Amino acid sequence: MTAIDELIENLGQKAREAARTMAGASTGRKNAALEAIAARVRAARHELAAANAADLEQARSAQLDAAALDRLTLSTEAIELMARGLEEVAKLPDPIGAISELVIRPSGIQVGRMRVPLGVVGIIYESRPNVTVDAAALCIKSGNAAILRGGSEAVRCNQALAGLIRKGLEEAGLPQDAVQLVPTTDRAMVGAMAKASAYIDILVPRGGRSLIERLMREASVPMIKHLDGICHVYVDAGADLVMAAAIADNAKTQRYGTCNTMETLLIHESVAKELLPRLAVLYRAKGVELRGDAHAQTIVADMVAATEEDWRTEYLAPILAIRVVDSLEEAILHINTYSSHHTDAIVTRDYERALRFLSAVDSASVLVNASTRFADGFEYGLGAEIGISNDKLHARGPVGLEGLTSQKYVVFGHGETRS
Amino acid sequence: MTAIDELIENLGQKAREAARTMAGASTGRKNAALEAIAARVRAARHELAAANAADLEQARSAQLDAAALDRLTLSTEAIELMARGLEEVAKLPDPIGAISELVIRPSGIQVGRMRVPLGVVGIIYESRPNVTVDAAALCIKSGNAAILRGGSEAVRCNQALAGLIRKGLEEAGLPQDAVQLVPTTDRAMVGAMAKASAYIDILVPRGGRSLIERLMREASVPMIKHLDGICHVYVDAGADLVMAAAIADNAKTQRYGTCNTMETLLIHESVAKELLPRLAVLYRAKGVELRGDAHAQTIVADMVAATEEDWRTEYLAPILAIRVVDSLEEAILHINTYSSHHTDAIVTRDYERALRFLSAVDSASVLVNASTRFADGFEYGLGAEIGISNDKLHARGPVGLEGLTSQKYVVFGHGETRS
Repeated sequence: MTAIDELIENLGQKAREAARTMAGASTGRKNAALEAIAARVRAARHELAAANAADLEQARSAQLDAAALDRLTLSTEAIELMARGLEEVAKLPDPIGAISELVIRPSGIQVGRMRVPLGVVGIIYESRPNVTVDAAALCIKSGNAAILRGGSEAVRCNQALAGLIRKGLEEAGLPQDAVQLVPTTDRAMVGAMAKASAYIDILVPRGGRSLIERLMREASVPMIKHLDGICHVYVDAGADLVMAAAIADNAKTQRYGTCNTMETLLIHESVAKELLPRLAVLYRAKGVELRGDAHAQTIVADMVAATEEDWRTEYLAPILAIRVVDSLEEAILHINTYSSHHTDAIVTRDYERALRFLSAVDSASVLVNASTRFADGFEYGLGAEIGISNDKLHARGPVGLEGLTSQKYVVFGHGETRS
Repeated sequence: MTAIDELIENLGQKAREAARTMAGASTGRKNAALEAIAARVRAARHELAAANAADLEQARSAQLDAAALDRLTLSTEAIELMARGLEEVAKLPDPIGAISELVIRPSGIQVGRMRVPLGVVGIIYESRPNVTVDAAALCIKSGNAAILRGGSEAVRCNQALAGLIRKGLEEAGLPQDAVQLVPTTDRAMVGAMAKASAYIDILVPRGGRSLIERLMREASVPMIKHLDGICHVYVDAGADLVMAAAIADNAKTQRYGTCNTMETLLIHESVAKELLPRLAVLYRAKGVELRGDAHAQTIVADMVAATEEDWRTEYLAPILAIRVVDSLEEAILHINTYSSHHTDAIVTRDYERALRFLSAVDSASVLVNASTRFADGFEYGLGAEIGISNDKLHARGPVGLEGLTSQKYVVFGHGETRS
């Protein structure tokens, strides 16, 4: 047995035991823990800033790039946001124990489904230290135990935060081991967690594409995972072009680097001549590079030719692919072929075509007359977000507390036996 | 590329295309297909009997044992049951397209979740030919495409049934490839299906432990899988002993070979002295072998000593392990340690302890004052059952049509953009 195997077994056994207590913990106790942690995070802001400064200093001497340093930075404002995030999660309704669909069967038994925690959640993340607190909060509220594996760059800050979390749990009478930070930054631990199905019920990777792809190859533990966001807006024949322009603008330019940003714009040929030149002015004023298909190029001059590769690309940058289509069906076919099944929208005035798009587009979020940027846990009202799922099983789209739970059947009988 | 790879690619591409049509198929058309198939199955009863006779003859010459021959046999009654099963599935409500929890958010968008098919369902089963029709019916109704891999012993019968299913689909105007039978009985196909995540969204293995264990090692496609049923009944202090005896009798002896049969009986020490001797008489009259812990042995003489191994065994036979416990908590701890998390029941008169048991026992079905034998899709009112899931993710416990679906977010907007 390697040292890593021993470590995961040790962490896993403690997590399993803590998970049993957490599953039965009252809402009041869980909320008390979240509030205690919030108070401790606020009180420790100077220590946290010092730990973060030390992490940043080491990161700078290791010559991390500006973006990485930015992700690693924990400002005073970010510390306050973590504390408020904990208080927000405390205010959310407790999903655990709720029984739904309780029906009486002909045999006399009453059958329903009770929402229960998954057990142990493994979270693998990279530089952002706030994930330590945000993820722990959701796991505590949903009655799970968490094993957190943060990035090596943020090790001092993560240790300080994990210490506060564990003290807050203890203060509320809950087991400290409900949240454990992996005490090593050895990369082998990522692989070990991905295979520890005896101890971890679900894995939530929060990081770049290379991390997710590695886990997709290695993991036997199921994952809530998020890959690409190749999102589309389709402007239908007869659409309100003022609305279409506002949505196309917002979906592309409100933020370039988010997963729900539009990457390809599809326009019905009957409105392309009027809409495209207007949009070109708007996008060019914001420095967005346009790449069009042959038809789009005949309408707006000086547009780069879009290639097959463009339809498959998540730019995460001020670049937009544009295609003119001759029907709703062609738009749906394009989307179901090239979309990453994340988020796709239609702008239309037509009732039947709106419903057809909603049902035919095979994506986690499908919108009518709204910007793709709305596809997120807060905008949807989940109150919090542990991640976004590109999968169809268990959780799809933005994942809140419910994604960290399962439902078991409960039966209320009066002595019934089966005949 | 091997012949098996080519075959799975070919089946997979056809299934993907058929799945797209099935996802948008109306309830009326899907029901028409189910009814057309039912009529064809009834009309073809003589051909089906002949195909089955040929399968049986070959199985006999291959010296299959009596149990295997029994599973393979398709009686006239079984053919009629298949037809009725199809008609029953046609009568079930269509889960697809239902939108739940449609709420208006502060931004003005209205957000809900629409139930959609999973896509392509792979079903791997052994000798029972009726699975061909039962599984196809559930996949059709839930708007999925199915790839069926039946056992080699039933090849003629399965081919005949698949032919009827495909003709029925065509008659209703649906794609024949919505149901495909794998045209080879090469065992390598099982492994290929288990890894075909590009083409198969979920795998439902229906077979013995060796099949499931093989798939657990090999599969990268997610599974709805069922392993052991080590089920418990706990008789609490103060329980109604007439009720307790009836439930303990029914849970063990109504059928010995089913997964929801009780394998271990836990009895609170305060009622053991009165209940155990009564039960011993009852069980012994039915030929059930009793294996007790030390305490139980002091109450009923001539009881075999139960070992650690007994607590972990799914007998599927007239054998029962018995343990006397000194508290509800000890019973819960025993269950959460040894149960296969399938189905566990308490018999009690106490309100608080009933609720405590319901919430603390970590099993797919938890019952109060009812026999474990009720844990099944039909008794729970699912109308049909594609399988039983021992997992916590996606589907838990008996799985009906809903387990073959997913939910996507749908957004109804009025031109909203994000600020």
